[in-house]
Amino acid sequence: MSAPSLADGGTDFRSDNTGSAAPEILAAIAAANIGTAAGYGEDQWSKQLHQRFSALFETEVRVFPTATGTAANALALAAASPPWGAIYCSRDAHIDSSEANAPSFFSGGAKLVAIDSRDGRILPSALDAALGAAGRGQASKNQPAVLSVTQATELGTVYPPDEVQALAAIARRHDLKVHMDGARLANAMARLGGTPAEVTWKAGVDVLSFGMTKNGGLMCDAIVAFDAGIAERLAFLVRRAGQVWSKMRFAAAQLLAYVEDDLWIRNALKANAAAARISAGVAAVPGVRLRAPVEANEVFLELAPERIDALAAAGIRFFRRTPNLIRLVCRYDTAAADIDALMTALAKSSR
Amino acid sequence: MSAPSLADGGTDFRSDNTGSAAPEILAAIAAANIGTAAGYGEDQWSKQLHQRFSALFETEVRVFPTATGTAANALALAAASPPWGAIYCSRDAHIDSSEANAPSFFSGGAKLVAIDSRDGRILPSALDAALGAAGRGQASKNQPAVLSVTQATELGTVYPPDEVQALAAIARRHDLKVHMDGARLANAMARLGGTPAEVTWKAGVDVLSFGMTKNGGLMCDAIVAFDAGIAERLAFLVRRAGQVWSKMRFAAAQLLAYVEDDLWIRNALKANAAAARISAGVAAVPGVRLRAPVEANEVFLELAPERIDALAAAGIRFFRRTPNLIRLVCRYDTAAADIDALMTALAKSSR
Amino acid sequence: MSAPSLADGGTDFRSDNTGSAAPEILAAIAAANIGTAAGYGEDQWSKQLHQRFSALFETEVRVFPTATGTAANALALAAASPPWGAIYCSRDAHIDSSEANAPSFFSGGAKLVAIDSRDGRILPSALDAALGAAGRGQASKNQPAVLSVTQATELGTVYPPDEVQALAAIARRHDLKVHMDGARLANAMARLGGTPAEVTWKAGVDVLSFGMTKNGGLMCDAIVAFDAGIAERLAFLVRRAGQVWSKMRFAAAQLLAYVEDDLWIRNALKANAAAARISAGVAAVPGVRLRAPVEANEVFLELAPERIDALAAAGIRFFRRTPNLIRLVCRYDTAAADIDALMTALAKSSR
Amino acid sequence: MSAPSLADGGTDFRSDNTGSAAPEILAAIAAANIGTAAGYGEDQWSKQLHQRFSALFETEVRVFPTATGTAANALALAAASPPWGAIYCSRDAHIDSSEANAPSFFSGGAKLVAIDSRDGRILPSALDAALGAAGRGQASKNQPAVLSVTQATELGTVYPPDEVQALAAIARRHDLKVHMDGARLANAMARLGGTPAEVTWKAGVDVLSFGMTKNGGLMCDAIVAFDAGIAERLAFLVRRAGQVWSKMRFAAAQLLAYVEDDLWIRNALKANAAAARISAGVAAVPGVRLRAPVEANEVFLELAPERIDALAAAGIRFFRRTPNLIRLVCRYDTAAADIDALMTALAKSSR
Repeated sequence: MSAPSLADGGTDFRSDNTGSAAPEILAAIAAANIGTAAGYGEDQWSKQLHQRFSALFETEVRVFPTATGTAANALALAAASPPWGAIYCSRDAHIDSSEANAPSFFSGGAKLVAIDSRDGRILPSALDAALGAAGRGQASKNQPAVLSVTQATELGTVYPPDEVQALAAIARRHDLKVHMDGARLANAMARLGGTPAEVTWKAGVDVLSFGMTKNGGLMCDAIVAFDAGIAERLAFLVRRAGQVWSKMRFAAAQLLAYVEDDLWIRNALKANAAAARISAGVAAVPGVRLRAPVEANEVFLELAPERIDALAAAGIRFFRRTPNLIRLVCRYDTAAADIDALMTALAKSSR
Repeated sequence: MSAPSLADGGTDFRSDNTGSAAPEILAAIAAANIGTAAGYGEDQWSKQLHQRFSALFETEVRVFPTATGTAANALALAAASPPWGAIYCSRDAHIDSSEANAPSFFSGGAKLVAIDSRDGRILPSALDAALGAAGRGQASKNQPAVLSVTQATELGTVYPPDEVQALAAIARRHDLKVHMDGARLANAMARLGGTPAEVTWKAGVDVLSFGMTKNGGLMCDAIVAFDAGIAERLAFLVRRAGQVWSKMRFAAAQLLAYVEDDLWIRNALKANAAAARISAGVAAVPGVRLRAPVEANEVFLELAPERIDALAAAGIRFFRRTPNLIRLVCRYDTAAADIDALMTALAKSSR
Repeated sequence: MSAPSLADGGTDFRSDNTGSAAPEILAAIAAANIGTAAGYGEDQWSKQLHQRFSALFETEVRVFPTATGTAANALALAAASPPWGAIYCSRDAHIDSSEANAPSFFSGGAKLVAIDSRDGRILPSALDAALGAAGRGQASKNQPAVLSVTQATELGTVYPPDEVQALAAIARRHDLKVHMDGARLANAMARLGGTPAEVTWKAGVDVLSFGMTKNGGLMCDAIVAFDAGIAERLAFLVRRAGQVWSKMRFAAAQLLAYVEDDLWIRNALKANAAAARISAGVAAVPGVRLRAPVEANEVFLELAPERIDALAAAGIRFFRRTPNLIRLVCRYDTAAADIDALMTALAKSSR
Repeated sequence: MSAPSLADGGTDFRSDNTGSAAPEILAAIAAANIGTAAGYGEDQWSKQLHQRFSALFETEVRVFPTATGTAANALALAAASPPWGAIYCSRDAHIDSSEANAPSFFSGGAKLVAIDSRDGRILPSALDAALGAAGRGQASKNQPAVLSVTQATELGTVYPPDEVQALAAIARRHDLKVHMDGARLANAMARLGGTPAEVTWKAGVDVLSFGMTKNGGLMCDAIVAFDAGIAERLAFLVRRAGQVWSKMRFAAAQLLAYVEDDLWIRNALKANAAAARISAGVAAVPGVRLRAPVEANEVFLELAPERIDALAAAGIRFFRRTPNLIRLVCRYDTAAADIDALMTALAKSSR
């Protein structure tokens, strides 16, 4: 078996999950692979994890490593919503479009309600209107339970903390919990500056899906619970969901390495910078339009279908959302040469 | 952070999940960490995985990597049972005692039915009697749907394939599917010899929880589906369960390395040999009795409570099941010195 | 306790469930209240029910009495959809707006997908487009499983059988089962003429929620299964849902009486005629507009908010859907005087 | 259709659900069938129901009518247990043996734990031991959540209130809620005397399945919630379970009539007296043994298989539990002649 031959060819902008695990992450796993450790999170790495993340977030938190972002989202939502709850999210939300209704399954019947958004960000007025018309107290209606915001959004934009705060304030007024899907939280942080606390619980977030996989992790994301009740329920929910590794030290070691010396932010800065290069470059390419401002590591381009075909023919890999809309995702390990190749192909495609 | 200091001290016989990831597994991850790869199992490692396991099992199989054994068991059972199904397992079964009713949750209401066993192995007569009295066709009763056998068993014994076959024949007669919890399948294989096919589908198994974590893996187990209908349902069940990694290549690479050059069997032989040493040694220690024959890597010892206390005081780590019953688990990386320390402590405990 | 004093006052157009149980239904209960009968549907009335409905529908059917229409809908859908299924319905569908996501709960996670409609009837082109874009085979998406049509619709219109057939044909092409929410099936039948077979399974329906409550029943609706697989699953689903009465004879006796001598159609004709009188009358009232053609027993009127207030002040009872939209529902027992009162109040409201 | 011909023949001791609806219940339905009433429990009968039952139980209660006892039990338990909860009941409990795991389904995965009993009554020591060993706080175990006691028990015995109190005290100590399956509560009350309050909440019960069907009802039981949190959750659970009739007045009217002038107790006294006659009579029949003391309306008899066959041949209808154990159930409408016939057949069977 020759591993390199198994890698996909081409210049890859398909997703941030097509990339590598960061060397620091692999090193941390190797370093933890010494001696024995109690199972199911009773090890010392896991204990350190709670302390380290509590320090990072400047408040007492509980961290629940999970295998995937889908698990993190669905379990966080299940811990925040009763079975008869309604979960409000943007029309573009990954939890609504791409997670096979896992939130309904894990919660025992909660319902996702899509709210109008602009450039991926939920419109406060639309949220307020939807909550006002939701039928609070009517048993024939799912009861408003959770607001879920995605940071960075599914369209590659970033909520300023005060926008999250404004949405959270509406949510509170209607007695909802607030969930943040932070699959790309690092990319948002890299854009925003500020502290993790400011971007999350200080902006009103009760429970966070903390992404690592897309930004250099290896098979591990996490839920960070700021709310004690949610944390208490999660302790039972994650275990019976088969999301608690017996060799949990290797999850904890990854998460510790991920925030050590700001690795997460440094990686995200690289990915964002790569996306910014594309964004800047396309400004000079006629016939190509950004679908939304590039504020993190994703670029959505509108261009003619035949030009999209030309890009693909030139070996650029990406996902096509509609006949004339493509998504390009930059990773912490996207090479400068890849962007050069992309820009060349884009320029050529117009001829 | 000094990793060694985080490891637990003592001579560790608590579980096979307290040990290390095998170097071959880590090497395979590193080797796969090159270039980019499509997400969610569309990569080349995952494709190779299906081929390699189909060859290994001498039949077309589908492999679904999962984060944990609990997930593997619960999802395999959910794919094999309707929501109103009954799942028959031994009184000692891990799925009944230690997985927080995950099978009921994932299946939407299936019921676990505990069957009498001897040394961890289900008694065929008890199974037959239970199925005969189950109320097939009565809507007020959960309908017999799945038989689950654990190989090696929760008491450290191993089913000869013809015993599995006999149980499976009873199951078939009552129109059940057959699941094997193979959290320690390698240890059973190491004991039995024979081929993976003989121990599983040729003995009547429809779906297998294929353990890797306990035997040198890193955060990954798998479901192997022999039955096409079960495989089809699993494809949807695992995704919405948040058990499909976007960076799936790292799971596939581990599983490929695990069966390469019989690593799984070689590791299991080491663990079994360590357990056999203990078993042989205790024969000479008065006042200590084996609860069940040692046929894999687990040793269950009955001895006086004060001697158990003495063992613990001597720095031996293990789990106490009852006041006078302890479980000692050997790993592929259990050191000879650890067994020496144990035997010394055991000998001393009697004075 | 003086029962009449407990009845609500006013001229009642709130719903068809505010009305009385038909005398024929009560008589049938009394007639069945003689001797003893086996429980849980093993009685002779229940056996006769299957025969009678099979004759009525000109095909072998299985009938599952249920307590409510919500139960009928949710259980029928749960029997027709896997937990990862998607259920397509109109934007106006009661199952989506008013049943607290019961279909998701009973199915274990299926998702409702709202399709554009005109006057309550699903647009075939919109259904086709949605199914084409649904992501069949993608595990990240709920898989198209069921089409649900409401007959008569939630806007008081009726599908001609060939429109149901056209929708069902699209559904079949995409491998879906077809459910009909027949909470007001009798009203549709009364409008359409034709046979029950033509309106249901001959038009492509696999499973039917057969309403009785709204049209003179007493605490009983039913599911009629045309598809054998759906029927088989329902047998288990309804029991554990607590929808199988031990004294089932009283449900069966009601359903038998309901179709005896076309009682259901006769009652529906009365309700429809009442609605038609309103429809005809409002044509002469300036400033009042029908929201949709009146084809069954519901009338949706658009008129100025202050006129709506005036109606309410005049003792007319109804539900207000928006500031200038009201729903008026006629029952089999709506009195001519009630319609007179309504028309008078409407006429007066314009001054 | 000639209704009488549909009734089963024979002398019927099969169940209390084979009997008739009480004339008072049917009269109440007829009396409520006047005028119109708001749907889904917003009617005046339903309002009166809460007041009447609050007076009856001498405390503020909420009453949720349900279609069946299975629904009452499963929903009450789902409202009292988290999805990861464990529900403790007697080995004989109907919720464990005969309700298709509805509690697991409705709760989203709770587990039933069978506790040793004597004559149908849970042994306090066994309950205490089970709770002590339950693994409170261990996420791998379902967490102790509810104790369910059946009153009268499944073996026809009755708990004195102080025994319920003793069990409830153990439950409280372990932080459990207490559910009473009162499918035959009236029969227990008739035996015990005392007030409804003393038998339920004063003995520690938080939520009650209040049976009516078996004692003269027509298609209606109820949940009575003493605990405010349980009541709040039930309001949403019952609706999406399809257990809230739109014509709720007819359920409320039945329940009101059922407790009016102690109808429930008067009916139960008749059924109990019939069972007592059998109990007294068999004392004189050699070779027939009571399996448990007859304290309510059920009689369990042990006798030789061929005598059981003889009884059946003599036209006595009953259920056979094992080859030499039968259950005879008396109803409020069991005729004296039926008991005469039974005693004659029993006497003859010995020859």
